[in-house]
Amino acid sequence: MQLREEWNGFAAGHWTSDVNVRDFIQQNYTPYDGDESFLAGPTEATDRLWGKVQELQAQERANGGVLDCETEVVSGLTAYGPGYIDPELKDLEKVVGLQTDKPLKRAFMPYGGIKMAQQAAESYGYKIDPKYDKIFNEYHKTHNQAVFDAYTPEMRAARHSHIVTGLPDTYGRGRIVGDYRRVALYGIDFLIAKKQEDLLNCGDGTMTDDVIRLREEIAEQIRSLRGIKDMAATYGFDISKPATNAHEAFQWLYFGYLAAIKTQNGAAMSVGRIATFLDIYIERDLAAGTLTESEAQELVDHMVLKFRMVKFARIPSYNELFSGDPVWATLEMAGLGQDGRHMVTKNDYRFLHTLENMGPAPEPNLTVLYSKRLPLNFRRYAAKVSINTSSVQYENDDVMRPVWGDDYSICCCVSATQTGKEMQFFGARANLAKCLLYAINGGKDEKFLDKKTGKNMQVGPELAPITSEYLDYDEVMHKFDLMMDWLSGLYVNILNLIQYMHDKYYYEAAEMALIDTDVRRTFATGIAGFSHVVDSLSAIKYAKVRCIRNEDGLVTDYAIEGDFPRYGNDDDRADDIAVWLLKTFMGKIKKHHTYRNSEPTTSILTITSNVVYGKATGALPDGREAFKPFAPGANPAYGAEKNGLLASLNSVAKLPYEYALDGISNTQTINPSALGNDLEQRKANLVNVMDGYFAAGAHHLNVNVFGVDKLKDAMEHPEKPEYANFTIRVSGYAVKFIDLTREQQLDVIARTCHDHM
Amino acid sequence: MQLREEWNGFAAGHWTSDVNVRDFIQQNYTPYDGDESFLAGPTEATDRLWGKVQELQAQERANGGVLDCETEVVSGLTAYGPGYIDPELKDLEKVVGLQTDKPLKRAFMPYGGIKMAQQAAESYGYKIDPKYDKIFNEYHKTHNQAVFDAYTPEMRAARHSHIVTGLPDTYGRGRIVGDYRRVALYGIDFLIAKKQEDLLNCGDGTMTDDVIRLREEIAEQIRSLRGIKDMAATYGFDISKPATNAHEAFQWLYFGYLAAIKTQNGAAMSVGRIATFLDIYIERDLAAGTLTESEAQELVDHMVLKFRMVKFARIPSYNELFSGDPVWATLEMAGLGQDGRHMVTKNDYRFLHTLENMGPAPEPNLTVLYSKRLPLNFRRYAAKVSINTSSVQYENDDVMRPVWGDDYSICCCVSATQTGKEMQFFGARANLAKCLLYAINGGKDEKFLDKKTGKNMQVGPELAPITSEYLDYDEVMHKFDLMMDWLSGLYVNILNLIQYMHDKYYYEAAEMALIDTDVRRTFATGIAGFSHVVDSLSAIKYAKVRCIRNEDGLVTDYAIEGDFPRYGNDDDRADDIAVWLLKTFMGKIKKHHTYRNSEPTTSILTITSNVVYGKATGALPDGREAFKPFAPGANPAYGAEKNGLLASLNSVAKLPYEYALDGISNTQTINPSALGNDLEQRKANLVNVMDGYFAAGAHHLNVNVFGVDKLKDAMEHPEKPEYANFTIRVSGYAVKFIDLTREQQLDVIARTCHDHM
Repeated sequence: MQLREEWNGFAAGHWTSDVNVRDFIQQNYTPYDGDESFLAGPTEATDRLWGKVQELQAQERANGGVLDCETEVVSGLTAYGPGYIDPELKDLEKVVGLQTDKPLKRAFMPYGGIKMAQQAAESYGYKIDPKYDKIFNEYHKTHNQAVFDAYTPEMRAARHSHIVTGLPDTYGRGRIVGDYRRVALYGIDFLIAKKQEDLLNCGDGTMTDDVIRLREEIAEQIRSLRGIKDMAATYGFDISKPATNAHEAFQWLYFGYLAAIKTQNGAAMSVGRIATFLDIYIERDLAAGTLTESEAQELVDHMVLKFRMVKFARIPSYNELFSGDPVWATLEMAGLGQDGRHMVTKNDYRFLHTLENMGPAPEPNLTVLYSKRLPLNFRRYAAKVSINTSSVQYENDDVMRPVWGDDYSICCCVSATQTGKEMQFFGARANLAKCLLYAINGGKDEKFLDKKTGKNMQVGPELAPITSEYLDYDEVMHKFDLMMDWLSGLYVNILNLIQYMHDKYYYEAAEMALIDTDVRRTFATGIAGFSHVVDSLSAIKYAKVRCIRNEDGLVTDYAIEGDFPRYGNDDDRADDIAVWLLKTFMGKIKKHHTYRNSEPTTSILTITSNVVYGKATGALPDGREAFKPFAPGANPAYGAEKNGLLASLNSVAKLPYEYALDGISNTQTINPSALGNDLEQRKANLVNVMDGYFAAGAHHLNVNVFGVDKLKDAMEHPEKPEYANFTIRVSGYAVKFIDLTREQQLDVIARTCHDHM
Repeated sequence: MQLREEWNGFAAGHWTSDVNVRDFIQQNYTPYDGDESFLAGPTEATDRLWGKVQELQAQERANGGVLDCETEVVSGLTAYGPGYIDPELKDLEKVVGLQTDKPLKRAFMPYGGIKMAQQAAESYGYKIDPKYDKIFNEYHKTHNQAVFDAYTPEMRAARHSHIVTGLPDTYGRGRIVGDYRRVALYGIDFLIAKKQEDLLNCGDGTMTDDVIRLREEIAEQIRSLRGIKDMAATYGFDISKPATNAHEAFQWLYFGYLAAIKTQNGAAMSVGRIATFLDIYIERDLAAGTLTESEAQELVDHMVLKFRMVKFARIPSYNELFSGDPVWATLEMAGLGQDGRHMVTKNDYRFLHTLENMGPAPEPNLTVLYSKRLPLNFRRYAAKVSINTSSVQYENDDVMRPVWGDDYSICCCVSATQTGKEMQFFGARANLAKCLLYAINGGKDEKFLDKKTGKNMQVGPELAPITSEYLDYDEVMHKFDLMMDWLSGLYVNILNLIQYMHDKYYYEAAEMALIDTDVRRTFATGIAGFSHVVDSLSAIKYAKVRCIRNEDGLVTDYAIEGDFPRYGNDDDRADDIAVWLLKTFMGKIKKHHTYRNSEPTTSILTITSNVVYGKATGALPDGREAFKPFAPGANPAYGAEKNGLLASLNSVAKLPYEYALDGISNTQTINPSALGNDLEQRKANLVNVMDGYFAAGAHHLNVNVFGVDKLKDAMEHPEKPEYANFTIRVSGYAVKFIDLTREQQLDVIARTCHDHM
């Protein structure tokens, strides 16, 4: 078979006639078992460009968080024309393309919600051109308005009381990872032709609503592909055909991603699994002598530089939920193939190396797909970078591969999706801790008052409250079960409505254009307050919990008599409750109709929203005070871990991944001294810890290596240069510590820092 | 029970607590058995206003068909502010309200299709503000683009070849009759409260796509109701509460209708069954001595005047299909109640009397719901008005009442819908004559060529063509059956797609706000070329039909040897084929999935599109020449009727209405002399004809009373003042003869004019 000229040197396979990037990778990648000694430092161009970006970031911080904001032009593929980090340094940029015409300038993205877009601009002192008021209220409805049109009063109440929260009803839902590699491998024209074929074959002629919707979506995808080509042309590139070398492959791929972030402002806008793919192009050029290692690293550095610059205009309440302006430009490395070969390439090293070449940074959200079968050299190198930068997260490839295959991407913090074959309906979280309180108080909210009556709002169903002085475990479990029944149904249906409206008013045409038409859809839900519910139930079961009621008879506090096992200590008495809770909630979620027959999943991850969720939640039977932050994700409660790091990890590892396919986020901070006396010891120990943790079936680990003292010092002295890029891993992503609010910083400081194993 | 103050003097009933206009009418109307002697002539105000409108209409005609065209402001409920026929005569207008700020000025309505709106303006020398290019292409998609996005190539081919045609894919679908009476009876606030109740009760919490869509629609309806109130306020009226007298009732009701024609540009924008309803208010005021007969007639005249002024901006190809700029402001009178009382009121006389007070006019499309149980006085008066104006149509209340009850409205030409309880998805027509030719030629179109191959387009399935020299009846029937299978499926699915997109991009919120939330939906289809198929099959069966083939073997003409019975002569041999054809096609339509589980219906009506449909259709085995007009609607072919008017009517009356619930349109022209020597004789005879025709179960009759000579003279001398308002009934509506194109005028002249019974 004659390969296209652009593919010279590649091994042929199914990928040559069908869109099949995985096959291309498996046929062509070169596993690398060596160490990091081959890596090259930053080029002068990299230093200059990164220096410029750091300047801009400093200005942005000085400017209150936003450097510039578009108020006239609605974002779109070609709305802004080309933009460069610095027009004078334009020729230095190996990977070009900005979201707007200027670096760090936030685009105007009204489709998720015009009010949100206007408020976001206003909160930073900008004013959107008033003509858009009419256009996006009268002529075109936005997602936000449509969702609120259809919400029921019960849904509004649940949203208001924060028993469900973080819902993507005012901005893009995100979490869709286009297979941006396709742009490089096939060029746009081939992708258009394939989508046109799909349109021809979409449906058997019977025009059900589902077929009509999909046909229109494919037409929009084709329109977007043409737009991406036009966008690239404004930068002087013709991407109609496949990339012919590594430089083009990086550029073509980045244009694919750029299309996504020009058209959508989802909370998470992941990049996907690109390292191994791009390595194939680099290897070909290195072999041909047309590229040096230094040039290869420069391509990686420049692309990563772009990922570090992705920004959206957000409203203040959004920033409270997800602090530090994250975009989840998540990017994966390593993992194993279905054939047993590891997929570590030199390029996986190069991407980690960007943290050394340009210093730590929260974005892209670098993720190592971990297995103890990865080469030791690589595991050790990753551990080293983690220890030095606290900017890497790890996910267990051995539990994900059987479910998602060997070409999945992480679409947000920790959630896997098959690259180019799947999309996820993002679904925020249900607050199960609050649900437990509703079970005790008969659906009444102790914080939020009914505007009409001035009494505590009846948010949940009016079930009979618990009236006994001491909580009875069986009674609580029965009521909690009933209340979870209600919450799971309401929650799924809120999401059904949001996803429907998002498809209708804010469809991700540019991303879906790079995903198979016959797409698998998952329906993500999530749990907040996990460890607190577990510990509360444990307290009720193993200690005595006395209710303290206010004058209206509402339980507002608890007195715990005696001791009880807590989740996070490798104690089955508590950990069994944790497993029960996950399985039970997921079982209830699965009972309900889900939009487009998507497959329901759940997660235990809360990003930084554990602070906001906690704020809305009263005192809990585990002793957590009212309105204080929750522990994040699947983390044990603050102060609960008494048996050291390994016991804590063992508890989390017991949660079966099959029941939380959207991910189980665990963030740990280890004092460097706990890992050993020097870097070599620390690397070895961290690798050992992760080998053991993931072998036990755990899903995810955020690794921070520093002491609490450093955090306290950074909080008090953010101006010190050493803290300018001081990055920490929080629940599911990384953030510059000094970008957190003081409240969030205090929360981070309050979290357990393990001083011993 | 205490009635609201506005309802003083009305008999209470279910209507007082629920929205139930029918109940209000039944409880309160006053049947009138007398004759027309009570009627009052036009007031001076009426003469002056109508004189002004006639001046404007003359200017409009002089201006090429359009007087003025909006290019800056998108139409909407309050987009234009108040408008008057003549600001100086403003105080004379008893019923105020225009579509735009000036009389006869066409609004800019882009939602159905921005291209159509732009072309419509351009074809009359106007240019839409170019900023709308971006707004309605980039920011907001219009119905037209969405439909074309989703069409299959097969659908495009079928549309191109005109085997399905007249599809509402570039403008509003129309045919939805809001119950405008509700505005008068209840006021807007009550209607909003009821819709809010519906929103609360919409769905059980499980958010399926259907529930979500409906919830959003109700929210849009509530938004529209608020908008209607705001619109009325710009004219100085507070319509939040019920109308307190006849004047307000006319005004409130008209505002409801005005909302529809400000927001939608459907082909048919019917007014509905309002005469009896409004009579109740007039009777109350007459009894109270607060209104005189002359003032009552003035209200009717002024409202009718407004209906005569409704205009939309149309493209030339639309005007070819529906000539004379019709809007189908259809308005019904008479009929019987379910309790056996006739529903003729003085107001039914008054509406007919507008044709005498202001002369004949095509709009509103005055429709008498006929039964021989209507008072003879009324039947005779209607006949008189028909004879003098040729501006009235008749529909058989005795066949419609069992299906639609006693409060239905005609939503287009002839199609019934239950007022306020039902909506119709309008569906244009399938060309069954062309389908017969496809059956003979194996799906190949003899007129349209494939652009790529230059050969005859393969539009239908590639079934084996008929190859014999003489057509065999059984073989033709078998192939025709297969081809109708294909066509009915394709046709229904084209409509499914169009209706889906219309709901998505051009939902009729203002009209649906005045219809029950729990709405019944019918799915209208239609048949074109009916009589030609019947006669062709009869020719094949009873005569010998020889095929004349072109060099490619395609049959392009037919030679008929011998005589055969034709539809339109009361000959069962032909008429049985007609019944078979209707039943068969309807049966095939019913097999298919229909959008929103709507109930499929069909019609035999073609408006004036018989000319365009004919143009696209080759020679037929009944002897009709290639590309000549079809007979309209269910009319027998031109020249086929050999046995006089009654025999023709008998043929049409055999078609069972149950199989064509969307209507069977029959247009007849009778020479005055055929009806008798003087008006009294003619009235008596016309009543007799209609009594007999409708008693036989026929559905509809357009009555024209004039000779061919008058038509010829009007065609040659349109400038004669007597022809300025010369109105004729064509298939399903009335039109000013001089507004037709010459081609259409010749077609009308070619139609059978009955010189004897």
